[in-house]
Amino acid sequence: MALKVALLGCGVVGSEVVRLVREQSAELAARIGAPVEIGGVAVRRLDRARDTGLDPDLFTTDAIGLVNRPDIDLVVEVIGGIEPARSLILSAIKSGKSVVTANKALLAEDGAAIHAAAREAGVDVYYEASVAGAIPLLRPLRDSLAGDRVNRVLGIVNGTTNYILDRMDSIGSGFAESLDEAQSLGYAEADPTADIEGFDAAAKAAILARLAFHTRVTAADVHREGITEVSAADIASAKDMGCVVKLLAICQRSQGGASVGVRVHPVMLPREHPLATVNGAYNAVFVEAESAGRLMFYGAGAGGEPTASAVLGDLVAVARNKLAGTFVAEGAHDTGLPVHPMGVTTTSYHVALDVADRPGVLARVADVFAENDVSIKNVRQEGSGEDAQLVLVSHRAPDAALAETVRRLHALAEVRSVASVMRVEAFTDENTP
Amino acid sequence: MALKVALLGCGVVGSEVVRLVREQSAELAARIGAPVEIGGVAVRRLDRARDTGLDPDLFTTDAIGLVNRPDIDLVVEVIGGIEPARSLILSAIKSGKSVVTANKALLAEDGAAIHAAAREAGVDVYYEASVAGAIPLLRPLRDSLAGDRVNRVLGIVNGTTNYILDRMDSIGSGFAESLDEAQSLGYAEADPTADIEGFDAAAKAAILARLAFHTRVTAADVHREGITEVSAADIASAKDMGCVVKLLAICQRSQGGASVGVRVHPVMLPREHPLATVNGAYNAVFVEAESAGRLMFYGAGAGGEPTASAVLGDLVAVARNKLAGTFVAEGAHDTGLPVHPMGVTTTSYHVALDVADRPGVLARVADVFAENDVSIKNVRQEGSGEDAQLVLVSHRAPDAALAETVRRLHALAEVRSVASVMRVEAFTDENTP
Repeated sequence: MALKVALLGCGVVGSEVVRLVREQSAELAARIGAPVEIGGVAVRRLDRARDTGLDPDLFTTDAIGLVNRPDIDLVVEVIGGIEPARSLILSAIKSGKSVVTANKALLAEDGAAIHAAAREAGVDVYYEASVAGAIPLLRPLRDSLAGDRVNRVLGIVNGTTNYILDRMDSIGSGFAESLDEAQSLGYAEADPTADIEGFDAAAKAAILARLAFHTRVTAADVHREGITEVSAADIASAKDMGCVVKLLAICQRSQGGASVGVRVHPVMLPREHPLATVNGAYNAVFVEAESAGRLMFYGAGAGGEPTASAVLGDLVAVARNKLAGTFVAEGAHDTGLPVHPMGVTTTSYHVALDVADRPGVLARVADVFAENDVSIKNVRQEGSGEDAQLVLVSHRAPDAALAETVRRLHALAEVRSVASVMRVEAFTDENTP
Repeated sequence: MALKVALLGCGVVGSEVVRLVREQSAELAARIGAPVEIGGVAVRRLDRARDTGLDPDLFTTDAIGLVNRPDIDLVVEVIGGIEPARSLILSAIKSGKSVVTANKALLAEDGAAIHAAAREAGVDVYYEASVAGAIPLLRPLRDSLAGDRVNRVLGIVNGTTNYILDRMDSIGSGFAESLDEAQSLGYAEADPTADIEGFDAAAKAAILARLAFHTRVTAADVHREGITEVSAADIASAKDMGCVVKLLAICQRSQGGASVGVRVHPVMLPREHPLATVNGAYNAVFVEAESAGRLMFYGAGAGGEPTASAVLGDLVAVARNKLAGTFVAEGAHDTGLPVHPMGVTTTSYHVALDVADRPGVLARVADVFAENDVSIKNVRQEGSGEDAQLVLVSHRAPDAALAETVRRLHALAEVRSVASVMRVEAFTDENTP
């Protein structure tokens, strides 16, 4: 008996899923232990020509009807967004159907409720494609590191911003120019807000943090800064320090381990760091675990075919579980670790100040750091006279103290302008370059 | 009811497994759905002090007795080598116990028979730790890419040789000197043969090829060349081309897809390739799949704790399967793809020749390439007069034709010496730098 799959959505990813299920049918049947076939495809409008090769009778606009059809065994959701995806997925779960989804927004907002419903119904919800596209990452985090303790996850999880920052670094172009180029190449959408303001990365950070720390994290818990303020001066300053600028999703246990911090912002990263070499629109996620040590997962973060490949990997797993009468009770064991606010997250800052090269300037600047209890890791002066620049890198300190330090520096008479401020990340054990 | 684990071997990895099982017991119980405990530890000699904190009564020299004890549910084998590991694993399987092993030698030699026995008995054999230590790699290859088609796998799977080559590249030291250093730092063993001659990498290549192509590959099928012949001149020549030298395990479908090639040898790899930045004793495996595109998995390839972490990840999976009454029937669907010999594998060669800078030399050299049906991708001459060097990179051609070309070049009167010969790898679609 073939397993019947309901496909919700037939856009870029959905049509690739159909193609792969058809082309790889023998292979899939062998790996699953039973053939799979598309039992129906829910679309918004029937009149759009679907170049899928499927029987047109399989298409319907009645998504909820399709999900509840008794002959449907598994549901693949590639519509995206919160509604109607959430209602459809919850319906599928309630009617005993396992779900494969690529929906990062929904999982970031409502993952806990969806997993709870799945546990109650005894079905799987798999979502490898929701973070870092084709890269097998979520299941390794969940399964292979199950006997380990993850301390930190650093991810380049948005290809658009990585492409833009990479161009700014390699050809020295400005932000606006690089965004234009990314748009004309199709790497950035006409409305690039979700990418460049870090919303997309924040949703993925929430999902990664939940998986890494087994605690409830939603997109709203994620401190988020985009890349629109990253200037050519920041990139140049990073270069001088042997660093590149990357937009990172960072999920980290607090020092005592009693809470977690989850944030998305641009950082300066030493060029020796494995993430520094991730170029173009590629994604990569770097994991620091207690026993496994440093791991990195690298690959295509988006695109119809890579995403569909991740969906198919999940489809094989949930189909196998279905046949075996088992499922993965995700989220059953919540550590309850709270998410702490950005202000108490310990970070390290790089600050470049335009100053007058006069005696006493460094002392005044150092005072401001000291008054905020921030210690300075290194200082370097460049230029001289009226063109002097003071470049400081702090040790780790609470982010609020660093932010206050920068606010005070702005007001200092000796500081003509704050040329660049950016957080610095490295490996946990050697945190500033 | 606790699941009881028999641990075979209690050396560097085994004692870390014990520690992690004890320290993470609550976490493991939550993830598995039942507690796990060490039911017994088989060791060669009881008199060795075991600093594990375990009840000394759990230790035994009767490994086969332990494996067959009816209260044992799962077996973890970290003895290594072919015997007695094979007999113990087959006994465990026959008595219905799932097995977690880190044994690359055994899986490379006899993986097919072990998987067949496991399928017949309805138990799991998991072996994530056997290749690339802590890196979650084998299960993603098996599970997450189950709906995809892998075309090529390139792996840095031996940390010792990667460390040596990295030192040769970064500080310009020779092979012998770098090997000495690796030995004094504990990265290389007193008898380094298994590493530097590529035997260790070849076993891992066989395992990777079997997983990637679903066909039977043993270590004996793997073409193997070590790094003992890599000279400072090779490294320098690679640098001139913007390349690094790496010892790679390469598993590749033939052009038509009707056979596979599996080989281990030093290669020149462009510095832009993600594998080129894998330094020190780290491991990484780069996968090219039809739909997923390019993926890379990076992390610690060896060491007690990383390896134990991989063992624990497997332990959670097989324990969960055991409780669910299911198992993964690995190897059930053999594609039967044959392994083709090295001579028909298409590769690309880099050749540096010391020649006299005289008219006609290039023509004579080019003739030799043409006579063997090898086309030249690019040629560069360095120096002049009696010190001229001709550097050629070929297009892809059968390895036998390239080897014959080099053999003929040695004999050419115009060639004073062949300074460097090495294969070149890049991405499949742009195969020479």
